[in-house]
Amino acid sequence: MSQQAKKTAIQPTRADDYAEWYQQVVRAAELAENSPVRGCMVIKPWGYALWENIQRELDVMFKATGVRNAYFPLFIPKSFLEKEAEHVEGFAKECAIVTHHRLVHAPDGTLIPDPTAQLEEPLIVRPTSETIIGATFSKWIQSYRDLPLLINQWCNIVRWEMRTRLFLRTTEFLWQEGHTAHETESDARQKTEQMLGVYADFVERFLAMPVLRGRKSDSERFPGAVDTYAIEAMMGDRKALQSGTSHFLGQNFAKASDIGFLGREGVREFAWTTSWGMSTRLIGGIVMTHSDDNGLVLPPRIAPAHVVILPIFRGDDTRQRVLDYVNEVAAELRAQKYEGRDVLVEVDLRDVRGGEKQWEWVKKGVPIRLEIGPRDADNNAVTLNRRDRETSEKQTVSRGDLGAFVVAALGEIQQGCYDRALAYRKENTRAIGSKDEFIAFFTPKNAQKPEIHGGFAVSPWCGSPQCEAWAKDELKVTIRVIPFDALEDGGFTSCVVCGRPKAETAVFAKAY
Amino acid sequence: MSQQAKKTAIQPTRADDYAEWYQQVVRAAELAENSPVRGCMVIKPWGYALWENIQRELDVMFKATGVRNAYFPLFIPKSFLEKEAEHVEGFAKECAIVTHHRLVHAPDGTLIPDPTAQLEEPLIVRPTSETIIGATFSKWIQSYRDLPLLINQWCNIVRWEMRTRLFLRTTEFLWQEGHTAHETESDARQKTEQMLGVYADFVERFLAMPVLRGRKSDSERFPGAVDTYAIEAMMGDRKALQSGTSHFLGQNFAKASDIGFLGREGVREFAWTTSWGMSTRLIGGIVMTHSDDNGLVLPPRIAPAHVVILPIFRGDDTRQRVLDYVNEVAAELRAQKYEGRDVLVEVDLRDVRGGEKQWEWVKKGVPIRLEIGPRDADNNAVTLNRRDRETSEKQTVSRGDLGAFVVAALGEIQQGCYDRALAYRKENTRAIGSKDEFIAFFTPKNAQKPEIHGGFAVSPWCGSPQCEAWAKDELKVTIRVIPFDALEDGGFTSCVVCGRPKAETAVFAKAY
Repeated sequence: MSQQAKKTAIQPTRADDYAEWYQQVVRAAELAENSPVRGCMVIKPWGYALWENIQRELDVMFKATGVRNAYFPLFIPKSFLEKEAEHVEGFAKECAIVTHHRLVHAPDGTLIPDPTAQLEEPLIVRPTSETIIGATFSKWIQSYRDLPLLINQWCNIVRWEMRTRLFLRTTEFLWQEGHTAHETESDARQKTEQMLGVYADFVERFLAMPVLRGRKSDSERFPGAVDTYAIEAMMGDRKALQSGTSHFLGQNFAKASDIGFLGREGVREFAWTTSWGMSTRLIGGIVMTHSDDNGLVLPPRIAPAHVVILPIFRGDDTRQRVLDYVNEVAAELRAQKYEGRDVLVEVDLRDVRGGEKQWEWVKKGVPIRLEIGPRDADNNAVTLNRRDRETSEKQTVSRGDLGAFVVAALGEIQQGCYDRALAYRKENTRAIGSKDEFIAFFTPKNAQKPEIHGGFAVSPWCGSPQCEAWAKDELKVTIRVIPFDALEDGGFTSCVVCGRPKAETAVFAKAY
Repeated sequence: MSQQAKKTAIQPTRADDYAEWYQQVVRAAELAENSPVRGCMVIKPWGYALWENIQRELDVMFKATGVRNAYFPLFIPKSFLEKEAEHVEGFAKECAIVTHHRLVHAPDGTLIPDPTAQLEEPLIVRPTSETIIGATFSKWIQSYRDLPLLINQWCNIVRWEMRTRLFLRTTEFLWQEGHTAHETESDARQKTEQMLGVYADFVERFLAMPVLRGRKSDSERFPGAVDTYAIEAMMGDRKALQSGTSHFLGQNFAKASDIGFLGREGVREFAWTTSWGMSTRLIGGIVMTHSDDNGLVLPPRIAPAHVVILPIFRGDDTRQRVLDYVNEVAAELRAQKYEGRDVLVEVDLRDVRGGEKQWEWVKKGVPIRLEIGPRDADNNAVTLNRRDRETSEKQTVSRGDLGAFVVAALGEIQQGCYDRALAYRKENTRAIGSKDEFIAFFTPKNAQKPEIHGGFAVSPWCGSPQCEAWAKDELKVTIRVIPFDALEDGGFTSCVVCGRPKAETAVFAKAY
């Protein structure tokens, strides 16, 4: 850190060491921590509250499309995973395998898996549930009248990861997985696109993260899918974060799991299926999209609290008066509505020094902080801080105006989060047609700061896996999406890697 | 079934074969089914919606006591489980053990757990989380200022069961587990009792299941607890269902996991901890408390739908008129409030024969069914059926009265469910002081129908494990609780088994 740098609540800063800054923001905001179990995290109350908010809002959106929730087994018999060839190859290398169902005392007194309680067939802790849900769908679906079948599951998932990072890549994570079966290819494709649309809408409106929608290249497809669609967001270090995926599975899993039905013509057909998922990874996305060198910044629509009130007690004689005033202000604010829900107010009465308390809430990203001392009570006012402004910029707001002021400010903060993220993405997205420029764009200027590279390149691609592999091997750059929306593409016509005629315009980036 | 028996939607009836009747009710209501994975169930949308309602209401009640949600790892290192001696003995015999983290192709092409990817220490799929949460608490708690720490987790649990029954006993189930740490024994005991109170209140008010609260005998304590409190309900076959438990753990787990803190006097002390849980087992309890020989009966406060509307189309000319009328009635009902929430209305437009459709909703237990045909539309009325009455007992209700009528009926149905269950329990609870009467009470009159026995015996007990063991071995009867509330106990003073002076009055019963 340079000598002139101003003091920040998070050390190191984003510019100094982005990866370490991320860990420190997560820690300082008390979102999550590493657990004693390799690769598994503990999601702390403040982080879990974000997940609860994500669940609540997404669940409403899913149900509005006719989806119903259900629950399927944690364990997948090995033989089920093997039914779809690409699928098992995709997950076999990183799965938790249950082999025994009892512990016994060894001769030395320690507990060991009981050799007489070995499972005939190992069970895999679900890395995703297409196969076990497919087996169930094959029983539930008999006729075209049973279609579409639209099911979602909220659950935990295990993929054995060697290098983990809180929220972004952990051995266990939480997610939802939607699974649907349809009568026709066109119905299934529509559902795949509809759910991608739900994801994009949710992420943009609630998490204030602008996303690009598009199709994945073959090499980035979900194992077993015909087509994978994704939404990709740009993080604060210009890398991409895949924030949600929706898969058109064709009849691959229907054939593997025998999901058949008697069609309208009286002929037995295979169903067309989809699956789509979003996970606790989104919380990492929120952190890396909005936070600053003072810690987490939360878009109000997903924040566990909109306002925190910090009473300032100057002495015993005024203590009760401040407390009464604080409770009245809290009650008035809670009676306000923001985006159709009650304004969420925390009152922090802990016996902690004022400055420390302030900074804790700064680091937790609460959109608005109110300091209330004896003078504020006398003046029927509050001292208000916005998390999205410089922390020293306080303003006095009279009690009569406070409700409307807070609701308006929450709206501005939400919009501001989105606008800043969109501007940042635009700033760091470039249409690139030449290979030299492509290489330069993705080459860090400073080997000490490998995160400082160009961002998103919108570039022509011939469609060959070789050119894609070159970018990955040479530059650690992948095709994030072949975008659905028209992007400024510079009008280039030759593949940025090999110079042959372009087949697609692709968005290339480094990614989490 | 006797020749005279009237036709019932569920075969066999409760009187004929209670255990099979239960399975058939669960199946017919589409609550759950067995999965291809041994001992694991698939919770179907109608059953999962019950769980969602349970979650939503309980979660509000927990948060009102200051509890916050968090999430801890699915896996427990074997060494953690071993930290508390009683605890590991309680769970070692029935746990799923993860031993490998990768599958590889064997020489014959099949996939096997990769011998080079064996875990150094096996991981146990959580059978409960005291040990892993304890390890985390020991980091979070430093000083008395960090107490109380009040955490809850909603998650899945695995206990390897050999004989399973949907909802009541499955290898995997869903639950919540609360874990709290306190400064003093008295605080922890108060929390244990408070949460038992929350459980009793929830089960009685929402699930309409009257419960007995009390303490477990030593032999029925949670492994590692100092005291286990429970609520017990009587099912339709007079057996008891333990419906929720709250454990005072003393300092056992605090010592095992080193949950210490610097006390007010500057001395390091161990915390006092509690844990408490409720699970998807409750859904089995709802089924066995309220259902009848026509299937599920749902208390309105937990029902996924309060009202189902079944349009009856008599011909194409009136179809649209009926549909419009149905939609208007549905909208009017949805604008009504029942117990502070919108009235939940399903409109069943499926192309299924009317009688079949009616019976499907009878079997699913929806409190109120409305049939609406052209004549109802003409008369501005509906034909209404209540699930808690004889199914043939229809009544016509005018549209203007419908909203108030439905809300009042829902209240009556909820109260009726509770009252019937309470009357049934009273009818089948007896104060018993003599051993002969005790034996007769629990001895089935008919060997073909082992479920038909007395019910709950309120009997004097000397306190010895031997007398308890005798009841279990000879009669399959256990002490369900040593009740907190004064029950009619007949004034007996000698142990019902051995005749020595009584130490406690206990509630004995057969149990799930």
